[in-house]
Amino acid sequence: MERIYFDNAATTPLDKAVLDVMLPYLTEKFGNPSSIYSYGRESKLGIETARKTVAKILNANPGEIFFTSGGTESSNTAINAAVNNLGCRHIITSPIEHHATLHATDHLHCKQEVKLSHVKLLANGHVDMDDLRRLLSTSEERCLVTLMHANNEIGNLLDIHAVGNLCKEFDAIFHSDTVQTVGHYPFDLRNTPVHFINGAGHKFHGPKGVGILYINENVKIDPFIHGGAQERNMRAGTENLYGIVGFAKALELATEHYEEHSKYINDLRMYMAEQLQQHIPGVTFNGDLHGRSLYTVLSAAFPKTEKTEMILFNMDINGICASGGSACTSGADAGSHVIRAINNDPNKITVRFSFSKQNTKEEVDKVVAKLKELI
Amino acid sequence: MERIYFDNAATTPLDKAVLDVMLPYLTEKFGNPSSIYSYGRESKLGIETARKTVAKILNANPGEIFFTSGGTESSNTAINAAVNNLGCRHIITSPIEHHATLHATDHLHCKQEVKLSHVKLLANGHVDMDDLRRLLSTSEERCLVTLMHANNEIGNLLDIHAVGNLCKEFDAIFHSDTVQTVGHYPFDLRNTPVHFINGAGHKFHGPKGVGILYINENVKIDPFIHGGAQERNMRAGTENLYGIVGFAKALELATEHYEEHSKYINDLRMYMAEQLQQHIPGVTFNGDLHGRSLYTVLSAAFPKTEKTEMILFNMDINGICASGGSACTSGADAGSHVIRAINNDPNKITVRFSFSKQNTKEEVDKVVAKLKELI
Ligand SMILES: Cc1ncc(COP(=O)(O)O)c(C=O)c1O
Ligand SMILES: Cc1ncc(COP(=O)(O)O)c(C=O)c1O
Repeated sequence: MERIYFDNAATTPLDKAVLDVMLPYLTEKFGNPSSIYSYGRESKLGIETARKTVAKILNANPGEIFFTSGGTESSNTAINAAVNNLGCRHIITSPIEHHATLHATDHLHCKQEVKLSHVKLLANGHVDMDDLRRLLSTSEERCLVTLMHANNEIGNLLDIHAVGNLCKEFDAIFHSDTVQTVGHYPFDLRNTPVHFINGAGHKFHGPKGVGILYINENVKIDPFIHGGAQERNMRAGTENLYGIVGFAKALELATEHYEEHSKYINDLRMYMAEQLQQHIPGVTFNGDLHGRSLYTVLSAAFPKTEKTEMILFNMDINGICASGGSACTSGADAGSHVIRAINNDPNKITVRFSFSKQNTKEEVDKVVAKLKELI
Repeated sequence: MERIYFDNAATTPLDKAVLDVMLPYLTEKFGNPSSIYSYGRESKLGIETARKTVAKILNANPGEIFFTSGGTESSNTAINAAVNNLGCRHIITSPIEHHATLHATDHLHCKQEVKLSHVKLLANGHVDMDDLRRLLSTSEERCLVTLMHANNEIGNLLDIHAVGNLCKEFDAIFHSDTVQTVGHYPFDLRNTPVHFINGAGHKFHGPKGVGILYINENVKIDPFIHGGAQERNMRAGTENLYGIVGFAKALELATEHYEEHSKYINDLRMYMAEQLQQHIPGVTFNGDLHGRSLYTVLSAAFPKTEKTEMILFNMDINGICASGGSACTSGADAGSHVIRAINNDPNKITVRFSFSKQNTKEEVDKVVAKLKELI
């Protein structure tokens, strides 16, 4: 059976060109990057070149880029550092963050008695900026604001500059979870008022098990994982050499083709939205589809019926990969905390379709035809 | 130039057979293991099969094995959990632990005011068991004992059963850093009195960027990295799928050939020790070479001269990879904390040679001949 993969916000296939740059490090170039002999220096060079590539693309200093095991570790590092090293005793976040943020902040709230606030959302899922200002202006403690750049379930995009400037006004630390946007949008970190952002290779055709944390050079923090002197004493552990090299290559490819791919993918998404509206009565879309929205994600809400309740299952049987919420929650049936927070309509069933450059219009047609048949 | 790699305690080349099982997951089998569709279930199956393989080899329950990003993260997880979840307010460790342990325990000592003691060592580098008993018996708080199974620089092996039984007597939590022994020795965890052990794939011809943490089923801890529900809510973050599958395969291969390879490697090591003694006047060996000692490591101490001070550098020029201390410290010149702790002889220069199944007697002969020439 042909498979149609519409779950690219969960993870993306590794690009062949990325695997090609990883393979030498999976075979002959295996030296420990921390070793002094030339054989280790070759590995070190691979890592430092990767760091420079990433820094250049994001317009940051290489000294601000740290390689980690993924987006989740990076978020945990930033959030813990803000509390433990930067004096933040009040965390402001939103109810629709990724679990990496929600659970890390909940844990700090419980264990270290840090104050925790969740900013209000507008009906379209965007952060209520007035409420954010109110929270910041009435806080008696230094705040950490952690708000995601793009929501992985509904695609809403944050105005990172507006939030960053507000944080500046109140001397707050700002972390933005950019896991869905690094590799999908251009970044200009030197001109963006943010202290921490993160990325995960596997979200843009790079490898799993590797991510980055950007730490603005003006903040000084302790490592989250302690040990050897890797990553300039900021992230201990023998480096995931092939992962790091692959991350940089994937980011390079994504950047090179940004204009072309983002337009292509957005067109696919809008075409699918249109087709669904034409063919599936009562379908609506979560989030801000026609406004500030990530071009890879389409969150469709189908009227609840016996048939739509089985829709994910039946798509699967027909070789169509999509998810109910984010990947990390799709195994559980608690439902999506994001959908619950923005629009708890018990009469709707949400399916997230998410696209990559590898998808085609023909696939959209097939999926819509199949949905028509199934619903 | 031919290269001779005698630094296998730093990292090992990936086995071809390991890469072969990883490749399908680096290409077509890329689905997110947390997804519900069959495509993700295939990945999930890869991970759960890997977990069962690892558990079986270590004689543990699959529910006790957690995949992490490496040995360092695993040690940090165990040590933090002992303090934050298991009521340990006193950490007992040794001065010759890996930095992952030393820096994680130092940090807890400073930040959370946990008491920290370093057990005395005997002249041969082994833990002074009487001192350990004294520390445990006089402690007013619950203790975490964290002592490494094999020292990565001098090879000393801990009697993990004796230490574990002592810990039991005093209701202490016991973590053993087994990064140098997982994949190098048989384990029987069901019959070993230990709460936490860890492993890193790249130390036994598996991939970098992946490790395990064994958590004995009788202890319940919080995750160290918070987020998605991966690893049964114990280690969040999209799984390093290929890394995990590769880890299990490497462990399987290591176990299959344990008898044969360990004898082969130990013979090489002893042959090299003998050859060095024959050809290099004044050479001695750190640790307990003829006693309880890891069969992969030979820590040679050469009389300090202008020539031996340049020995690592000159070996490198001649294509010989070895290290002064551990890999993570060999970049810095602070020297080795291990050598300093056991035998701070200012008139000796230490070189660690560490072997794998891929090394040969001919290589030993060449290295000894070259050393003879260089010294
Ligand atoms: C918005 C967002 N943040 C964080 C993460 C966590 O990234 P990872 O699972 O690679 O650690 C994800 C994806 O899972 C995500 O979509
Ligand atoms: C004894 C010991 N513990 C811990 C580690 C850390 O492992 P990793 O660097 O893979 O995180 C190493 C190796 O670097 C080691 O030799």
